[in-house]
Amino acid sequence: MLRSDYTDQNCSIARTLELIGERWTLLIVRDAFMGTHRFEEFQRNLGVARNVLQTRLIRLVDGGILRRVRYQERPERFEYRLTRKGVDLWPVLVALLKWGDVHGGAPGPPVVLEHRDCGGAVDDRRRCVRCGADLEAWDVVPRRGPSSRAGEGAGEGETQAETQAAPADDRPQTAAA
Amino acid sequence: MLRSDYTDQNCSIARTLELIGERWTLLIVRDAFMGTHRFEEFQRNLGVARNVLQTRLIRLVDGGILRRVRYQERPERFEYRLTRKGVDLWPVLVALLKWGDVHGGAPGPPVVLEHRDCGGAVDDRRRCVRCGADLEAWDVVPRRGPSSRAGEGAGEGETQAETQAAPADDRPQTAAA
Repeated sequence: MLRSDYTDQNCSIARTLELIGERWTLLIVRDAFMGTHRFEEFQRNLGVARNVLQTRLIRLVDGGILRRVRYQERPERFEYRLTRKGVDLWPVLVALLKWGDVHGGAPGPPVVLEHRDCGGAVDDRRRCVRCGADLEAWDVVPRRGPSSRAGEGAGEGETQAETQAAPADDRPQTAAA
Repeated sequence: MLRSDYTDQNCSIARTLELIGERWTLLIVRDAFMGTHRFEEFQRNLGVARNVLQTRLIRLVDGGILRRVRYQERPERFEYRLTRKGVDLWPVLVALLKWGDVHGGAPGPPVVLEHRDCGGAVDDRRRCVRCGADLEAWDVVPRRGPSSRAGEGAGEGETQAETQAAPADDRPQTAAA
């Protein structure tokens, strides 16, 4: 029996993977959290084929995880912003990040998460290890970690990542979405 | 530029997806947590093609997430058990589960997680909402939720799921792995 999807699995994990389990999809969501919003930026960061990127973005919009926002009228141009449903994927990304930090084989974390208010590190339960607060996506800022390499992947654009973490930027709109 | 992997992304999320991001892989890990260990059981639960299942299991063993354990000598037969590295994926599964519970479109969670000791529900930070304890995989037991359907997916085999949650079963071995 060869099946190409998980549709008859009555399971919240399978339902989630049905929407975000495709190759590149979670990295697009990751980049949206890091402040990437435009097609050309996603394409440059990810190095993914344009047709694949286009398909994934359409699917994320159809799935309610990203929304298209017009940022220019003539010619009309759109960028992609996380919805509240998209921001709610933050715990998935943190869980993947923390596992990769421990088991991914890098000498140290390429990116470390920091509590915006007090500068404390963020543990794998998304709590600040300094002040003990339960943190949401918009409370946290990514910083270059010990094994970051300039100009590559998530380590790229320190300023962008540190100033534009998408959830804070998006919060007013996404909370109402 | 067409790439088939994320190897030049210096990012813990990309590294993690490189290992567990393939279709079916996380559902195999999910089933291992629920007490499934043998090829035929995985095949029956997932309904995935045998060659795909075999490829995924080999990759999980090579990646150190599952280990092959001989359970019969003549003829020699093996089953698959989570290693400590595999058990460490539990936060990823919980994050996917919680997101799917909220956004997956089911009328209610098919499976709910319960703190083994006190019976409290488990929140999305893997804490017991009743006693406040930080929970590990082996502290938690899955129960049928409001939208479970008999004989399907993760809802199948209540007794199996409730008595054999893999981490508790595996803990002595995996802690040393």
